[in-house]
Amino acid sequence: MDLSNINVEGLDFTIPTLGPGKRPSPVNLSNHRGDMIANFVRDDEYIIFDIRAKAGATVEYTRKQLIERAGPRESIFFNPDKVHAAVVTCGGLCPGLNDVIRSLVHALWYQYGVRKISGIRYGYRGFLPEFDHPFVQLKPETVMNIQRLGGTVLGSSRGHGERTSEIVDRIEMEGINQLYTIGGDGTQRGTLRIAEEVERRGLNVAVVGVPKTIDNDLSFIEKSFGFETAVSEAVQAVADAHIEAENAVNGIGLVKLMGREAGFITASTAISSRDANFVLVPELRFDLEGENGFLTHLEKRLAKRGHALIIVAEGAGQEHLSSGGGFDASGNKKFGDIGLFLKDCITNYFREKKIEINLKYIDPSYTIRARVSNPIDSIYCARLGTNAVHAAMSGRTKMLVSNVNDTFVHIPTELAIAKRNCIDPESDLWRDVIEATGQPHLMLNR
Amino acid sequence: MDLSNINVEGLDFTIPTLGPGKRPSPVNLSNHRGDMIANFVRDDEYIIFDIRAKAGATVEYTRKQLIERAGPRESIFFNPDKVHAAVVTCGGLCPGLNDVIRSLVHALWYQYGVRKISGIRYGYRGFLPEFDHPFVQLKPETVMNIQRLGGTVLGSSRGHGERTSEIVDRIEMEGINQLYTIGGDGTQRGTLRIAEEVERRGLNVAVVGVPKTIDNDLSFIEKSFGFETAVSEAVQAVADAHIEAENAVNGIGLVKLMGREAGFITASTAISSRDANFVLVPELRFDLEGENGFLTHLEKRLAKRGHALIIVAEGAGQEHLSSGGGFDASGNKKFGDIGLFLKDCITNYFREKKIEINLKYIDPSYTIRARVSNPIDSIYCARLGTNAVHAAMSGRTKMLVSNVNDTFVHIPTELAIAKRNCIDPESDLWRDVIEATGQPHLMLNR
Amino acid sequence: MDLSNINVEGLDFTIPTLGPGKRPSPVNLSNHRGDMIANFVRDDEYIIFDIRAKAGATVEYTRKQLIERAGPRESIFFNPDKVHAAVVTCGGLCPGLNDVIRSLVHALWYQYGVRKISGIRYGYRGFLPEFDHPFVQLKPETVMNIQRLGGTVLGSSRGHGERTSEIVDRIEMEGINQLYTIGGDGTQRGTLRIAEEVERRGLNVAVVGVPKTIDNDLSFIEKSFGFETAVSEAVQAVADAHIEAENAVNGIGLVKLMGREAGFITASTAISSRDANFVLVPELRFDLEGENGFLTHLEKRLAKRGHALIIVAEGAGQEHLSSGGGFDASGNKKFGDIGLFLKDCITNYFREKKIEINLKYIDPSYTIRARVSNPIDSIYCARLGTNAVHAAMSGRTKMLVSNVNDTFVHIPTELAIAKRNCIDPESDLWRDVIEATGQPHLMLNR
Amino acid sequence: MDLSNINVEGLDFTIPTLGPGKRPSPVNLSNHRGDMIANFVRDDEYIIFDIRAKAGATVEYTRKQLIERAGPRESIFFNPDKVHAAVVTCGGLCPGLNDVIRSLVHALWYQYGVRKISGIRYGYRGFLPEFDHPFVQLKPETVMNIQRLGGTVLGSSRGHGERTSEIVDRIEMEGINQLYTIGGDGTQRGTLRIAEEVERRGLNVAVVGVPKTIDNDLSFIEKSFGFETAVSEAVQAVADAHIEAENAVNGIGLVKLMGREAGFITASTAISSRDANFVLVPELRFDLEGENGFLTHLEKRLAKRGHALIIVAEGAGQEHLSSGGGFDASGNKKFGDIGLFLKDCITNYFREKKIEINLKYIDPSYTIRARVSNPIDSIYCARLGTNAVHAAMSGRTKMLVSNVNDTFVHIPTELAIAKRNCIDPESDLWRDVIEATGQPHLMLNR
Repeated sequence: MDLSNINVEGLDFTIPTLGPGKRPSPVNLSNHRGDMIANFVRDDEYIIFDIRAKAGATVEYTRKQLIERAGPRESIFFNPDKVHAAVVTCGGLCPGLNDVIRSLVHALWYQYGVRKISGIRYGYRGFLPEFDHPFVQLKPETVMNIQRLGGTVLGSSRGHGERTSEIVDRIEMEGINQLYTIGGDGTQRGTLRIAEEVERRGLNVAVVGVPKTIDNDLSFIEKSFGFETAVSEAVQAVADAHIEAENAVNGIGLVKLMGREAGFITASTAISSRDANFVLVPELRFDLEGENGFLTHLEKRLAKRGHALIIVAEGAGQEHLSSGGGFDASGNKKFGDIGLFLKDCITNYFREKKIEINLKYIDPSYTIRARVSNPIDSIYCARLGTNAVHAAMSGRTKMLVSNVNDTFVHIPTELAIAKRNCIDPESDLWRDVIEATGQPHLMLNR
Repeated sequence: MDLSNINVEGLDFTIPTLGPGKRPSPVNLSNHRGDMIANFVRDDEYIIFDIRAKAGATVEYTRKQLIERAGPRESIFFNPDKVHAAVVTCGGLCPGLNDVIRSLVHALWYQYGVRKISGIRYGYRGFLPEFDHPFVQLKPETVMNIQRLGGTVLGSSRGHGERTSEIVDRIEMEGINQLYTIGGDGTQRGTLRIAEEVERRGLNVAVVGVPKTIDNDLSFIEKSFGFETAVSEAVQAVADAHIEAENAVNGIGLVKLMGREAGFITASTAISSRDANFVLVPELRFDLEGENGFLTHLEKRLAKRGHALIIVAEGAGQEHLSSGGGFDASGNKKFGDIGLFLKDCITNYFREKKIEINLKYIDPSYTIRARVSNPIDSIYCARLGTNAVHAAMSGRTKMLVSNVNDTFVHIPTELAIAKRNCIDPESDLWRDVIEATGQPHLMLNR
Repeated sequence: MDLSNINVEGLDFTIPTLGPGKRPSPVNLSNHRGDMIANFVRDDEYIIFDIRAKAGATVEYTRKQLIERAGPRESIFFNPDKVHAAVVTCGGLCPGLNDVIRSLVHALWYQYGVRKISGIRYGYRGFLPEFDHPFVQLKPETVMNIQRLGGTVLGSSRGHGERTSEIVDRIEMEGINQLYTIGGDGTQRGTLRIAEEVERRGLNVAVVGVPKTIDNDLSFIEKSFGFETAVSEAVQAVADAHIEAENAVNGIGLVKLMGREAGFITASTAISSRDANFVLVPELRFDLEGENGFLTHLEKRLAKRGHALIIVAEGAGQEHLSSGGGFDASGNKKFGDIGLFLKDCITNYFREKKIEINLKYIDPSYTIRARVSNPIDSIYCARLGTNAVHAAMSGRTKMLVSNVNDTFVHIPTELAIAKRNCIDPESDLWRDVIEATGQPHLMLNR
Repeated sequence: MDLSNINVEGLDFTIPTLGPGKRPSPVNLSNHRGDMIANFVRDDEYIIFDIRAKAGATVEYTRKQLIERAGPRESIFFNPDKVHAAVVTCGGLCPGLNDVIRSLVHALWYQYGVRKISGIRYGYRGFLPEFDHPFVQLKPETVMNIQRLGGTVLGSSRGHGERTSEIVDRIEMEGINQLYTIGGDGTQRGTLRIAEEVERRGLNVAVVGVPKTIDNDLSFIEKSFGFETAVSEAVQAVADAHIEAENAVNGIGLVKLMGREAGFITASTAISSRDANFVLVPELRFDLEGENGFLTHLEKRLAKRGHALIIVAEGAGQEHLSSGGGFDASGNKKFGDIGLFLKDCITNYFREKKIEINLKYIDPSYTIRARVSNPIDSIYCARLGTNAVHAAMSGRTKMLVSNVNDTFVHIPTELAIAKRNCIDPESDLWRDVIEATGQPHLMLNR
């Protein structure tokens, strides 16, 4: 994770709890090393967040700066017999949703013996009586083989997360005391409001998030689930566009990929495919025309090689679009369609110059989102879900499960939603993109 | 990476060099932040290796304990016009070899302008005149699209790494001054001997390794290239075995996977597939018979569910085999075939008990090794290769490129080969295996 | 289909029936052309089997020589309300079994309104009370998404087909009046015996087979379901073996594929992959040693190109093996393992000649059998299953559904099991294999 | 192939030739049965086209009605030393183009010893000097591994086929005497004009086509290469759309697939996926509004099940579009975009009715076209290409290679381009679509 823009000093990684663990965990683990039996995680096991260091420096690590390790605790807060867990998936589809649902159910059922698990249909909307979506009772049979299907068996939708009071009414009415929310930035904001309202009402409800962001743009979430699958599928679409471009006279392949605020998918796809000549991301403004503009560079590339390949993130170049404005139901700013815009720009530019081109535009987003997670994402989802259950059972709340420095950890929800994660143009990742594409560092006339 | 068995105190991460960088790098990067242009990596950029911390603790970081970041340096040691680079691939096949070769060639050619790159055929053997394998001249055209092929375009073989003096004779004769070795434990030992001999002769040859270990068992290499691809393919084979087992009366699926000293592939595969009931790894001895023996547990599982699935790493259970002994050409201990051994054991056990079983044995190792790297491994290979070139051009030697705490770094070859990386049975990873399989922590009668 | 070995004159394609269709079909179709609505198939719609013709010749087509088209009939024999259908899958796994089960259930349920469909567990064994496998009630929900899983949800086993009387006792007891058997040669023999016994007892039970033979060796079944999927998977295994061979010094890849009596899978795989140098099939004997023996040709190939790739069908070269003899539970002759035999032969041959080789042996059979059907096989399975239901509902019996000259048809079971389908060495298919591999027409010293 | 619309009587399948075969073929085959060596194909080997028959009928087969079998002839027309073959690929991309190119080169080079093979760049355009695309010399090394790449290594373009005279000038100038054109309807029309012009000039140039039509809409071409691959990829896109639809409140998935004049891809995709509820094809007009209109049926489906899936062929519903008219460079009528049109229609319809829907529109065409052929298509391409070479070497011209009734045959180009192949709404195929989707036979208010 790039740390250059983060004020590491000011961070506070302390995790809120409903109270101390007071009953022994039913999970069969050891509490000392040397017996060859896997161990519970102790509450004082932390990892360092900022791994940069100067030789010879002395560092004092305060609790606030350290990140708590995830995992099963020897003492738990909840009585499994009294747990009513609820699982909800919100926002757009992402590979791995069903893997997470399945691992939540498995961990609750098999490890802790919880027998009451409700699946909420179609996002937060499923809590609202007016829509009349009955809860689904989840157990091992209902989640059998769901990991072989894309999407989410619970269904999803955007919005309704702001109707905090009604949602908490329902939670109270149903006696739900563990809420697992699988969703992105907007969802987690809703989650936090729910947790706060629950607290205000004096209810003991653990609210734990599993961060879902195919764009990989949540802070302190080094790698979001589904990201690897998304990149793998995107690489294939880019390969197709490359074939189309290479096989035509002055062929231009133009692929739009996911990435509203952050260009991670486009960047990784470009490094993997090595065929892209231009990668346009939300983090770097670019000019269209002029000596150092994108179209000029594109023309030069065509003249030199006879074909070109462009990958653009959906949030890139919004400064060129007079978008209608407004926000969608998830509270995301509505974007103009940069893919179609560029398609028209390029077509017009070369038509005016009377240069024949053959442009093929590909937007594979919906097919990528609906794919089944690949085995590596699947492992990741399984471990995220299991750790979310361990956290909730121990009484932790207002937190997300995450993976930092290759370790599963707990992150306060408040920190994760405070700021977007995005590509630092001066980072190694972007350097590798520049190297892979050969594009200019900046396409700005200044 | 599990650190519990490593004496972190005694480590020395200092990287040997041929001399200081004295000429400006031709790579077009910036050397200060804020200009939105990616930066060179400075020689004083380090990361912390051991990320565990206690709240309130004060730590002093000495140079020896810190790991150097990989990446392009502003000043380089070699004059690109005078570089003769050699690339060699050794040992068994692994997904991603061609990606690494390609990225080495691309980085040398496009970033530094090196024009003399020799590919050595069939491992170290290609250096030995008696075998008469001419060098291959590598350039962008010769590596075009090779990433779409499995295996290595250079060919590979085991052994001959001990003929250090002859190899260095050839290196000297051909004027090679950068040697990139892509290989595992045995290969890197050979590399180190070559580097030492080169030093003795007073030659300025940078010797840089790209660690290849499909088993993921090299120390300080958190994730070896090809590992994710291998797991993905293994998951498919395990799914097939599961189908065979589930569809037969008392069906037993038995899959042998790679993993001589370390069971990482089997462990990850089991977590991903969730269908396995028993995972046998080299790190954990097990009894066959007796109350707490593997066969007893297998029988119980069959009685309960009517089918069972077993994944065994090739290095597991060697204590039960009267292997012929000896070592292969790579210096690896010859193993007995645990897969066939277990197949016979299980068959005999149930035959004696007059219990009908249907056992299907699958050994997918060769098909896994020869696969094309998946896009994520492909990105990883590209970045490893590029960083290897940056390291050699800067004059570093006797080192490997690696990735630690999600950061590309330099590791002294000596450290990497000192000790195998293997699964700690008390780690989170193994805990998740136990959880996914439901197998006993230990299958020993004691 | 190769016709050179078939006495076309003597064939009789007449299909037995339980009686005439006497009630209108509930399927919503038209019975005249021109209304743009799909039509019922008339009982007098036939196709020509032998499509070879001489210019100027006059041919008289008798009923016996013509093949009946499959499809929905305007009048049906059974009252859907009274139908108790049973579905059974027998023998080894094959891609597409679940597709067939699903399409049988869908056609019975949605097209005819049949509500009583029993799934028999584990092959014919599921009929025998001693094994105590309860029937599964099949309906659309129970077959939802099963096409995404390999294998058969009903389970399968070999044998027990000879216990005709007990099976028919159960059929009578349960009131089953439509039996769908999905299986190969042995299964269909059993089916025929069941149909005869049923007839003897004067029961109105339609017995319709869906031919399953991954080897493609049933007569009058031009293409068996799962065959394309099997070839596709085999091509990948062969590609892996090729990489292993090409990347090693005197590398030899040896792949054993399915094909007991017929080498269709090996032949098609060789044409697709184009990398194989030798294809060994049951239809062509070969010598091992001697001037024109296989090993001599292999040695020449190695000397010339440095690597070689061999594909062998499991039934090939049995004359060289002193197999233990006997038969398996399906009544198939037990074969010696030609793959391991060749591996040893080749190893010894070159060891004696002191020629270094690197042989990699791959046997992907179980992983191929368990795969999910590819979309084309999936279409084929869906159409086979639907046509099987149309046939049974119309009162036809003792028949298989098949596809001949690109048309879905009915074939008398008796004809299909009378003789194996196998490769004619003088056919176009084998000519293309010779062309693709460059191997000698014959490897016999005579 | 559906024959109901073809006047079988009037067909003439006679193949034009440049003259009789007069020199022995260098291909090593036998000319008599019984020696276990594959045979040459004799000139009097024909197959029946129309396989429908009435029991008891007597049929006289004239030469004109019979189709000539493809394959190597014992006597050939051309002296291989004097052959200058040219290969050109025209029109849109299609999986398998590189397989065909490769097999043409392999058959010419290895089987006949032809050493002069020119690849024409970017379609017919590559013949025209003004565009300055030099010919590529093709030989086994240049086509090595190209089957692993999508697209065509020669490049392709539309149009220029009408500049017959200039093309033939170039053919004459270069001494080309065999022309292989891989392309669709428009390309083959151009081919025929070239053949006629060549004839007028008294040149001995064999002109042989390999029919390429991803839509499968050429007459007498039962299955066009790439079709199976296209369907397989389309099935995946439809599965994605289904997931998107199923997971949203009133989710509608809308997928546009290839199919200008014929809906074969959509029909096959629908049968394979089984998830589609509506398939719209060019062969069947439909009303949008009204009691029996598409939108009404869609609304009913949504009300009943909460989600819906629509597959539309690009040529469907053109009667509803005020297309700009005109023709593209291949001479194809320009179509309006039915996908975007329907998207708007559906959105407006439900907005007016104040019914919330979630529509996801997917157009995977470019990604499908650029894919690598699957193994079965790959076999088919290999065999088509080889047979094209056998035909040209024997002096045949003005013909296409094809596959009819599962046999490789020669078809006069004139016949193939006379009429489009399209779906008969009263055929078995469409009946199976109706069954798989449950859609009404007709959606017309009449």
